[in-house]
Amino acid sequence: MRIAIDAMGGDNAPDEIIAGMLESIELLAEDDELILVGPEEKIAEQLSSMKSRRGTISVVHAPDIIKMDDVPIESLRRKPKSSIAVLAKLAKRGQADAVISAGNTGACVAAFQMRMRNLPGVNRPGIAVVFPTPGGPVTICDVGANIACKPIHLYQYGVMASVYSKHLLGIENPRVGLMSIGSEDAKGNEVVKKTRELMKSDSKLNFVGNIEGRDIFKGACEVVIAEGFVGNVILKLTEGLVDGLFKAIKHELMEEKIRLAMKFKPVVKRIYKKYDYNEYGGALLLGVNGTAVICHGSSQSRTIKNAILASKRFYTEKINDKIIEYLSGTCVRNTDE
Amino acid sequence: MRIAIDAMGGDNAPDEIIAGMLESIELLAEDDELILVGPEEKIAEQLSSMKSRRGTISVVHAPDIIKMDDVPIESLRRKPKSSIAVLAKLAKRGQADAVISAGNTGACVAAFQMRMRNLPGVNRPGIAVVFPTPGGPVTICDVGANIACKPIHLYQYGVMASVYSKHLLGIENPRVGLMSIGSEDAKGNEVVKKTRELMKSDSKLNFVGNIEGRDIFKGACEVVIAEGFVGNVILKLTEGLVDGLFKAIKHELMEEKIRLAMKFKPVVKRIYKKYDYNEYGGALLLGVNGTAVICHGSSQSRTIKNAILASKRFYTEKINDKIIEYLSGTCVRNTDE
Repeated sequence: MRIAIDAMGGDNAPDEIIAGMLESIELLAEDDELILVGPEEKIAEQLSSMKSRRGTISVVHAPDIIKMDDVPIESLRRKPKSSIAVLAKLAKRGQADAVISAGNTGACVAAFQMRMRNLPGVNRPGIAVVFPTPGGPVTICDVGANIACKPIHLYQYGVMASVYSKHLLGIENPRVGLMSIGSEDAKGNEVVKKTRELMKSDSKLNFVGNIEGRDIFKGACEVVIAEGFVGNVILKLTEGLVDGLFKAIKHELMEEKIRLAMKFKPVVKRIYKKYDYNEYGGALLLGVNGTAVICHGSSQSRTIKNAILASKRFYTEKINDKIIEYLSGTCVRNTDE
Repeated sequence: MRIAIDAMGGDNAPDEIIAGMLESIELLAEDDELILVGPEEKIAEQLSSMKSRRGTISVVHAPDIIKMDDVPIESLRRKPKSSIAVLAKLAKRGQADAVISAGNTGACVAAFQMRMRNLPGVNRPGIAVVFPTPGGPVTICDVGANIACKPIHLYQYGVMASVYSKHLLGIENPRVGLMSIGSEDAKGNEVVKKTRELMKSDSKLNFVGNIEGRDIFKGACEVVIAEGFVGNVILKLTEGLVDGLFKAIKHELMEEKIRLAMKFKPVVKRIYKKYDYNEYGGALLLGVNGTAVICHGSSQSRTIKNAILASKRFYTEKINDKIIEYLSGTCVRNTDE
């Protein structure tokens, strides 16, 4: 399998990216190939300072970089030789079986979607993120690829995230919840109401109805479907709130007494370890015709290593074939486009 | 001032409602009147068992109750003698200066909006909730009154929540952030993009642009404007996540050793006290022609007491007059209705 990685994506590139790639090598098969995409001379310099089984690594030159705050479509047009654009081209030409980037999410979604095209039966790709919760991993889709969601898109996210949850996370019959503002059938906006009807009409889908924000961490379901705008707010709010809460606790403990704070430290560490989203290595862009992983901008080497392993599992488990098979057999049809 | 309270609203009615009302009496003026709305015989029974300055309390009979999971509009139609419907009528007829309920939020919004009508210059009322954060109180509007938000509604929420934040929370020049999926101007859906233009065009508004979910608790602004659907998800997710996180910490501590858990208890208590939304007594329905407070279904006596005090401050500070004055002087006009 050939896995292409954006050497320049994210806040810690290229150091953490290259380090993560090297960490992954031990866990890959002999015939797996890693392709680093970025400015050749910069990468060569970095690589030469690191010892490893470097035979499996090749470099594809991409002199430009799309910055984290660049406007996605515009920057892709302006920088056709950026690492993200080159990554997408490798996937399109069949020169890479998986692409991974911790760079500008919007640019990744646009480039991968444009070049890789959609899977047969899929109208719009969606980003799926796994939240570690006390009740087990919960997959949320979409967290921001599609902010003009139609009911058919949301239904397909339900299907894709279910397949993912079942075959990659090992959850037998994942329950699918639809993010709304009340659990009753009558609640929600028009898109949610129509989506509910589509989901209900598919008896193969284990649809449990509407859920509310508070249900995500309460074991109400293993798959949460949300419009991209809402899913993105959920993702970032969770991040900010967990961070803020631990800081508040630390502050209180320090005021109490420093010894208690010291004792609390390993507890926080254990919680972070237990609920560590870095373990999942990033978010899958479900619905594109290929394997695409988009990592958090703050990704560390460990995240990149896990993203590489996740892309390999996604590829070898043939998740896309399973999605195609499911959608080709569903009676749910697009009624609004 | 005459304050009418739904005796039957919420999970802890009528006991906590009546208890909260009695607690508030000591803090009100001699000529303030409290009106309890609910089934007469049930309330009389409860009241008789409690000692207090009962001369200031009158009871208005409302035999029916709208349950927490009833469909709002339908139940209002079916139960014109429900406590929520009667509450709204009292406000309409000028028999109450403020109305307070911890009952079915949707029914409250529908009844208050229908009977009290909107303030001059306001197109749609919005629910404003105050989040206690490390950087101080943050007012979020709307958290669920309006799930078909137009740009003009969101702009007006910005104005109303600013006035509220300034005159009731004492924040001099509150910064207003617009909830989106990226802080850059180009990000967000169509409603967000148009709203940003409206907000920018009002130089009196201290608009700081787009914010993301993670910014709410990071002191990015004192006022957060969101579509009702998104605001509702934010509110409930925050509630569920804080709760879940403390449970996870407790679980970890118990595994460690019980003595450490005991030591941690007062810290949690202090954090809860510091960030206690019960202190704010509920959410204001901004934009209706009157004073309406909607409390959480789980409200305790303390919440109700604080809601009564909040309604009094809102009324005596003439927040509505300040909103009317602001909106009559703004150059921002409705462009999409």
